[in-house]
Amino acid sequence: MAIKEILQSYNKTKITIATICSHTSLQIFHGAKKEGFRTLGIAIEKTPKFYSAFPNAMPNEFFIIKDYKEILKVAKELQKKNVIIIPHGSFVEYLGGENLLKMDLPTFGNRNVIPWEVNRKKQREWLLSAGLDMPKEFSSPKEINCPVMVKFHGAKGGKGYFIAKNYDEFLEVNPKEIYTIQEYITGTRYYINFFYSPIKNSGYKLSKGSLELLSIDRRDEANIDEVYKLGSKEELKKLGILPSFVVTGNVSVVLRESLLPKAFEMAENVVEKSLELCGGIIGPFCLETVVTDELKFKVFEISARIVAGTNPFIFGSPYSDLIEEKLSTGRRIAKEIKLARKLGRLVEIIS
Amino acid sequence: MAIKEILQSYNKTKITIATICSHTSLQIFHGAKKEGFRTLGIAIEKTPKFYSAFPNAMPNEFFIIKDYKEILKVAKELQKKNVIIIPHGSFVEYLGGENLLKMDLPTFGNRNVIPWEVNRKKQREWLLSAGLDMPKEFSSPKEINCPVMVKFHGAKGGKGYFIAKNYDEFLEVNPKEIYTIQEYITGTRYYINFFYSPIKNSGYKLSKGSLELLSIDRRDEANIDEVYKLGSKEELKKLGILPSFVVTGNVSVVLRESLLPKAFEMAENVVEKSLELCGGIIGPFCLETVVTDELKFKVFEISARIVAGTNPFIFGSPYSDLIEEKLSTGRRIAKEIKLARKLGRLVEIIS
Amino acid sequence: MAIKEILQSYNKTKITIATICSHTSLQIFHGAKKEGFRTLGIAIEKTPKFYSAFPNAMPNEFFIIKDYKEILKVAKELQKKNVIIIPHGSFVEYLGGENLLKMDLPTFGNRNVIPWEVNRKKQREWLLSAGLDMPKEFSSPKEINCPVMVKFHGAKGGKGYFIAKNYDEFLEVNPKEIYTIQEYITGTRYYINFFYSPIKNSGYKLSKGSLELLSIDRRDEANIDEVYKLGSKEELKKLGILPSFVVTGNVSVVLRESLLPKAFEMAENVVEKSLELCGGIIGPFCLETVVTDELKFKVFEISARIVAGTNPFIFGSPYSDLIEEKLSTGRRIAKEIKLARKLGRLVEIIS
Repeated sequence: MAIKEILQSYNKTKITIATICSHTSLQIFHGAKKEGFRTLGIAIEKTPKFYSAFPNAMPNEFFIIKDYKEILKVAKELQKKNVIIIPHGSFVEYLGGENLLKMDLPTFGNRNVIPWEVNRKKQREWLLSAGLDMPKEFSSPKEINCPVMVKFHGAKGGKGYFIAKNYDEFLEVNPKEIYTIQEYITGTRYYINFFYSPIKNSGYKLSKGSLELLSIDRRDEANIDEVYKLGSKEELKKLGILPSFVVTGNVSVVLRESLLPKAFEMAENVVEKSLELCGGIIGPFCLETVVTDELKFKVFEISARIVAGTNPFIFGSPYSDLIEEKLSTGRRIAKEIKLARKLGRLVEIIS
Repeated sequence: MAIKEILQSYNKTKITIATICSHTSLQIFHGAKKEGFRTLGIAIEKTPKFYSAFPNAMPNEFFIIKDYKEILKVAKELQKKNVIIIPHGSFVEYLGGENLLKMDLPTFGNRNVIPWEVNRKKQREWLLSAGLDMPKEFSSPKEINCPVMVKFHGAKGGKGYFIAKNYDEFLEVNPKEIYTIQEYITGTRYYINFFYSPIKNSGYKLSKGSLELLSIDRRDEANIDEVYKLGSKEELKKLGILPSFVVTGNVSVVLRESLLPKAFEMAENVVEKSLELCGGIIGPFCLETVVTDELKFKVFEISARIVAGTNPFIFGSPYSDLIEEKLSTGRRIAKEIKLARKLGRLVEIIS
Repeated sequence: MAIKEILQSYNKTKITIATICSHTSLQIFHGAKKEGFRTLGIAIEKTPKFYSAFPNAMPNEFFIIKDYKEILKVAKELQKKNVIIIPHGSFVEYLGGENLLKMDLPTFGNRNVIPWEVNRKKQREWLLSAGLDMPKEFSSPKEINCPVMVKFHGAKGGKGYFIAKNYDEFLEVNPKEIYTIQEYITGTRYYINFFYSPIKNSGYKLSKGSLELLSIDRRDEANIDEVYKLGSKEELKKLGILPSFVVTGNVSVVLRESLLPKAFEMAENVVEKSLELCGGIIGPFCLETVVTDELKFKVFEISARIVAGTNPFIFGSPYSDLIEEKLSTGRRIAKEIKLARKLGRLVEIIS
């Protein structure tokens, strides 16, 4: 059955907002509850105890499965509960992009964005065609002529990523598997958390709908953030201690105000291009940027869904407060579903 | 007179929450006032002027003494004011653990924890027996076989602490006094601020009472945080500039959500063990951790009372907001006293 | 016409708060709107679109000019709108201190502070005579006998600033233009955001009026903050990669509570001295400090107006919440104007 038809069969007064119990689930449940929705947490093997410590984010129901792929099999059961899935970053990672595309459950956002997000070449094509400035990419390590970040498929979540200042340093690691070699931009990192609504008709308007900036964070990465305390990179290399880039948490930041117009312009172009390419990047997305000492943005990645970087802002951010007090990204998603239901346009924000 | 009897003699409707005017006193007074308590600030020699700038945290009364040890002598006078002492980190440091044990004043929390906190060996025994993963300790500098943090008693508040990558680097400083040599873990630091209530019967339940996570911070440390800007550690050593680890402030952080279940599990085990060992670590405590690039926690210390790391959260945290809006640790303490008074169980949270 | 007379001619019930659309304008407009004022945004060439994303900070009117100096020419027109200008950091930079002094528009704060702020020698004289501890300054590079920060006029916003550990390192850059050579203090940086009201008669009282501490931030600086990830300074120099100090954003911090009395004392002395020197540093100001591992403040600069470092606190700070909930510096300015209007003392906070 097509998602549209499933959605048609739903009792719209009893919509349940559901996601996997990890990543950004606390704010997703918290926001949904605040907006009056029932909530359902999908967990593996047993009920996670830690939610009991956070009564305002405790889902109304837990749905226990054996492994994440089981979600595909229990779709019917979840349909009966009028479930709309919020696919956070771990959702995609655990289930796999392919499986997410096959899932017979109404899912917040546009699933047609997934191929443009998960394939690095397509993602780069999308962002460059939207006019964004990105770090150079090298097709062969021999071409390295500046410091680069090397990412390869064997590396788990940033664990094996490394910086090479030249070809020789590349050879010291010389990963065999497929990799990307990206210019390493020096500057300060800003992960800018936007929200695109195709149905909201006020605020920062686009050709269709409107755009919001909800928060900005910076990722904590182990061990690169603090390893310098031990000694210089060169000294540490002798001891076999190599930097790694595993995300362990997030910090709230604000951007120099004069850079905001450019940040909006980039996000606007990314959305407009996505409308052309695949029907639009609906809901939350994150532009991952470095600001250089020339006050220029370099965008090194986009995440086409709610990112963990929105977690510092469960109680609002210096930006979202200018829209509405205590507006987390999780709550913004719930508001979008509520608005779409009211307007009879759920089909435009669900896929 | 035993604390129980002193407490019995109190006019429970006129309880006054008191602490030394430093460390976390602003949030302790602020929280107590919000919950309707009278407040009293103990200060040395003169009324500190800076509270007048913060009307919502201004204690109702200042109690001026000559030096901290005088608190022991004026206990009777404070008893007449129905004072309950909140012992923050500086309270313990200024008064000394020994003196705190002798103080004839009802004190929030369990004083029997103090010996387990202040003695490094006992603290390690406690945490290891609770199943926590801790950095290795070396009984002799000759055994150093990895980077270590060296702490010695002559060092004041992190001033003389140093990192040695091997035995030779240890010898360059070679402190004579008693010291601990602890494996230096590379990763990112999270200071996780919990609250254990033996009387609250909802939320994240333990064998007795329940557990809360109120906030997570990271310490600012001078000069280690920023000294790298001058040059590499090796270059700076030539100039006689050595890193130091003196806490000067705190920053708000959030932890990767998938690490929360483990954080709760650790705290749960620490509390359960403390119930066995000494009657329970009652009230706020802090697990001081490093998260490695394997996404494992290493716990390098526990603080068995309110820490300065809760100061960024006077107006709430992304975690406490999921329990109740604008819930600081200071306010949480006041709520606990209020609840215990209501239940007639003050004696269980006071010692 | 003198500012006093212009102010006299104003319809006080229709005051419009105005500033240039950049820097801290979001919180200035947001705060003014919250306090019931009309707001006007001065922009170059066209209406900036990004405000539409922040409805609570959207000015009621945009006033479009060709370049910033045009403000001087359109003063009459703005006077008709009963405009009070809030001069933020970029305002001063764009217009120039000289021009700001000539502007025929009621301006929040005391313009007589400007000469004491923009001239480095006079600023130093002011702060030292207020008893503040500042980094040493070297009148000649040959005198360098410790690590120094070198600032020169050709450098744009921190781009060419550099650290030299000795005279030789100075010679490697050897800037020709006028410069300041300031001892480089190792420690952690705290940018402490105060507010001085000459008309408020409660709180932390001074010889005239009172003092508030509204927030503390730390600046993000590109590329110095993150460049260490590439390798040691010495290695990077070989590659031609030099540190730079361009402010790109801000992070919220709190200070060790035991340092607050000293912070207030410094600010108090700075205000009292300013009353002597030029009639007072009215409104927001920022002491830019390093805290050393001896827990001493070194003040390296003062900003005599609202700084971008107040932007993380649009929804309040752990300090301002102790005065009034959700009190940004922008809102505090609006409250001051409101109070002065009520008391008939606008002339004392406007120049």
